[in-house]
Amino acid sequence: MELTHIEHIGIATPNIEEAIPYYENVLGLKCYNIEVVEDQKVRTAFFKIGQTKLELLEPTSPESTIAKFIEKNGGRGGVHHIAFATPSVQASLEDAAAKGVALIDKAPRGGAEGLNIAFLHPKSTCGVLTEICENPNLK
Amino acid sequence: MELTHIEHIGIATPNIEEAIPYYENVLGLKCYNIEVVEDQKVRTAFFKIGQTKLELLEPTSPESTIAKFIEKNGGRGGVHHIAFATPSVQASLEDAAAKGVALIDKAPRGGAEGLNIAFLHPKSTCGVLTEICENPNLK
Repeated sequence: MELTHIEHIGIATPNIEEAIPYYENVLGLKCYNIEVVEDQKVRTAFFKIGQTKLELLEPTSPESTIAKFIEKNGGRGGVHHIAFATPSVQASLEDAAAKGVALIDKAPRGGAEGLNIAFLHPKSTCGVLTEICENPNLK
Repeated sequence: MELTHIEHIGIATPNIEEAIPYYENVLGLKCYNIEVVEDQKVRTAFFKIGQTKLELLEPTSPESTIAKFIEKNGGRGGVHHIAFATPSVQASLEDAAAKGVALIDKAPRGGAEGLNIAFLHPKSTCGVLTEICENPNLK
């Protein structure tokens, strides 16, 4: 598939408000957006560094996959997924499927910040939950 | 501290040779370097995507921190650390220490690919093992 850069790194956190001071005051980054993604049951906070965004993910429900990730991780946050930018999520999914990669999303769907996104299954991606995304505003 | 971009993402893997075909054939990246880092007891494989490298980490000894990470992770690989590029590791460490951040490395040391590196402790970085690194060849 055609990938251009790391679009974002998804980082689970039990509490966005407690995490933001570390990213702003220690790392010197700026939180430029906080957004709830209803269908993922998460609240997200975004920072930009170079080509890449850091996406903090706080669960808004115990049913959220992020809540389960944090619980499994001993109540602590951690890196949840890596997202690669591609010119076409649809073409990338077709390419991955043809190569036998297990897909969580068989078709692109809407994600945070207006991106079209899809997840590949970590059983096919060497243990790393992997997202591919395209920015339809760039077209 | 002053950070410019994500220098690399460190990804633990039980076996580099088994992981490379995924990164090359599915993601379409190219492994351009394989290097043993003796003092970390790891063998590393590098891929470049945009500004960022993916650094696969395979333990060369059961004593390696990467071996312990994989064991704790049910025998599977996963994202081990995020590394930020900075113009000065020394200045960044001093800044972090002044802000009460726990440091794994109190002074810069040599890492893979000739970089000067240091790790911050995940207890001060919202659960994400965090590396800062500078490329002395850029000076």
